[in-house]
Amino acid sequence: MYAVGIDIGGTKIAGALVDEDGTIVREARVATPASDGEGIVDAVVTLVEELIEGVEAIGVGVAAAGFIDADQSIIVYSPNLSWRNEPLKAKLDAKLSIPVIIENDANAAGWAEFRYGAGRGSKHMTMLTIGTGVGGAVIADSKMLRGGFGIGGELGHIRIVPNGLLCGCGAHGCLEQYGSGTALLRAARELADSGSDEGALLRKLRDAAGELTGDQVYEAILQSDAGALRLLAELGEWIGQAIASLTAVLDPEIVVIGGGVSAAGDLLLEPIRKAYLANLPARGYRPELKIKTAEFVNDAGVVGAADLVRLALAQR
Amino acid sequence: MYAVGIDIGGTKIAGALVDEDGTIVREARVATPASDGEGIVDAVVTLVEELIEGVEAIGVGVAAAGFIDADQSIIVYSPNLSWRNEPLKAKLDAKLSIPVIIENDANAAGWAEFRYGAGRGSKHMTMLTIGTGVGGAVIADSKMLRGGFGIGGELGHIRIVPNGLLCGCGAHGCLEQYGSGTALLRAARELADSGSDEGALLRKLRDAAGELTGDQVYEAILQSDAGALRLLAELGEWIGQAIASLTAVLDPEIVVIGGGVSAAGDLLLEPIRKAYLANLPARGYRPELKIKTAEFVNDAGVVGAADLVRLALAQR
Repeated sequence: MYAVGIDIGGTKIAGALVDEDGTIVREARVATPASDGEGIVDAVVTLVEELIEGVEAIGVGVAAAGFIDADQSIIVYSPNLSWRNEPLKAKLDAKLSIPVIIENDANAAGWAEFRYGAGRGSKHMTMLTIGTGVGGAVIADSKMLRGGFGIGGELGHIRIVPNGLLCGCGAHGCLEQYGSGTALLRAARELADSGSDEGALLRKLRDAAGELTGDQVYEAILQSDAGALRLLAELGEWIGQAIASLTAVLDPEIVVIGGGVSAAGDLLLEPIRKAYLANLPARGYRPELKIKTAEFVNDAGVVGAADLVRLALAQR
Repeated sequence: MYAVGIDIGGTKIAGALVDEDGTIVREARVATPASDGEGIVDAVVTLVEELIEGVEAIGVGVAAAGFIDADQSIIVYSPNLSWRNEPLKAKLDAKLSIPVIIENDANAAGWAEFRYGAGRGSKHMTMLTIGTGVGGAVIADSKMLRGGFGIGGELGHIRIVPNGLLCGCGAHGCLEQYGSGTALLRAARELADSGSDEGALLRKLRDAAGELTGDQVYEAILQSDAGALRLLAELGEWIGQAIASLTAVLDPEIVVIGGGVSAAGDLLLEPIRKAYLANLPARGYRPELKIKTAEFVNDAGVVGAADLVRLALAQR
C-alpha cells in the first residue's frame, strides 16, 4: 500500500507517493504560499489529492520545520513559518479522507536516512541537518526518540556557548547560531565586508550580485577559496564539538550530516571529525562513531514522512 | 523470585537481596578494597554468597561508576576506580553460579527512581546524580537509553564551557567540572582561602579541621551561610543550564536530581529551576518539565541494579 509524504519548506512544498520499500512512484510540488497558514493547508490538500488520484494510499505524513507535539498533531512552535500552536493535523483532517500525521522535518529526513540511506543497518543514529537552521533527529534502538512532549531531537538548540549569540528560539548560544548555513553566510558577509585579503573572492562575488548569497559562498568553497574554506572549517568545528557532547548523551553508532551545507562533503566532514575526536570524552577508551553525509539529496523529507505515517498507523 | 543488587562505590560495596516489588529483604556491605581489582571481585562474590544463602535468586546486577560496554559485561573506563577494559562480568561469572550483568551506577540509580521513586508514572525521565562526579541516566519511552556502544547517558560529560576546565575524561569543559560535589568543594576551598568576608564561616570550619571537607560545606549550607549558599546556587545554575540544553535532545517529562549534593533540597532545586527556565529553547511555547529530588537515599543503586538484571534476563 502506498503512503504520501509531504515536506513543507520555506520556499516550496514537495509531495510524493511512496511505496513500502521507500521508492517514490509519483512526485509533485508547489511554491509555499508565503506567510499564509490557510494557503499552506489548501496547497497540501491539493498536492495530496493529485498524488493519490486513482490509487489507494494508507495515509499522509507531513514534515514541517518546527516543534511538533507528542500526538503528532500540532506545530507548537515554528520559528521560520511563524506558526504558534497551529493545529495542522485537524485542519488537514477536515479536508482529507485518509489519516494524517505531522512530523518534524529533520525527524522525517533522519528517518529516511535510517531506513534507506546512510544510517541503514544501524540501531542508534543521530542526524544533523545543516541548512537555514540546524535540525536534528535521534534514533535510539531503532526508534525515533521524541521525548515526553514530542520535542526531542531538536539538536540545533543544544547550547554550545554560555551567554552566546541570541537564537530565534529565545535562548542564547544555540548550535544553530554557529553551525547553520545562515551562520556561515553571516560570517562570509562579514569577511567580505572586512576588506581583508582573505575576503577578496567573497567581496568580488558580492559586488557582482549586490549582496552575497549562500550559493556564492558555496561557489567560493568549490573554488578552494581560503577564506570560504576557513569559515566552513569553523562551522565544522562547532558541529564536531556538538557531536562529541551529544555522544555523552546518546552514544550513537553513526552521525549523518544532511541539509544544504552537507553538499560540501569532505571539506565539511574533515573539520567535523577532527573536532569530534579532539573533544570526545574518554577518547581512546571507547569505540568511535562514524560520521557520514546523507545519501538522499532532496527527497529525504517526503520519503521519511511517508514511512513514518505508515509506522504510526501500524502502531495504533 | 529475588534478584541481587550490588553497588560498588569508592569507599564501600553495598549489596541487597531485592524482591519483585523493589523491596529490599536482606542487606550487607563491606569496605571497598582500595585500588585492588581482584579484591573487589572477591568482595562482591562474598557479598553475593551471603545475600543468597538459603534462598533462590535469579541473577546479580552490579552497579559501578564507569562506562560499561553494550553487552553489560566490561567496564570500559572508570575514572575513579582506575579500571580500563576490566572484564568484570567474566571474572564474576567464573566464581558465581547465577547470571551477572554490569550496569553503570547512575543508570542503576535512575532506573530505581523511574520504577519506584520520583520518576514513577513517567515514560521519559532524565536523572542527574550530583556527587563526587556528575552521573546520568536517560530513560526514553520507558527504556534505558544505552546508545550504540553502551555508553549513553553519561551526562556529566556533556560540554557546557568551550575550552573549559580539564575533566578526568580528557575533554575540556564537561558539566562534571562545574556541577559536581567535587567542584563545589573546590570552590568552597578557594573561597575559604580567599580571605574574603564571605568565606569567614568556611575558613573557620576549615581551620578547626585542617582541611575543608564536603560535610563542612554542607554544614555551612544548613547554617544558611551566604558564601556557601552562593556557591551552591552557582552549581545549581550550571545544572539548570545543562538541563535546558538536554531538553533540546531528550525532552523528558521529569528530571530527577540525586547524589549526595541533592540533600540540599530546594536550596539546590531553586537555582536549577531558575536557570532551566532562563535557558529553555522556545520557552512559553512548550510544556515545562518537572525537576525533583530523588526519593531513594542510599539504596537506589542496589534496587535499580537488581531490577535491571531481572529485566535483562527476561529479554534474553
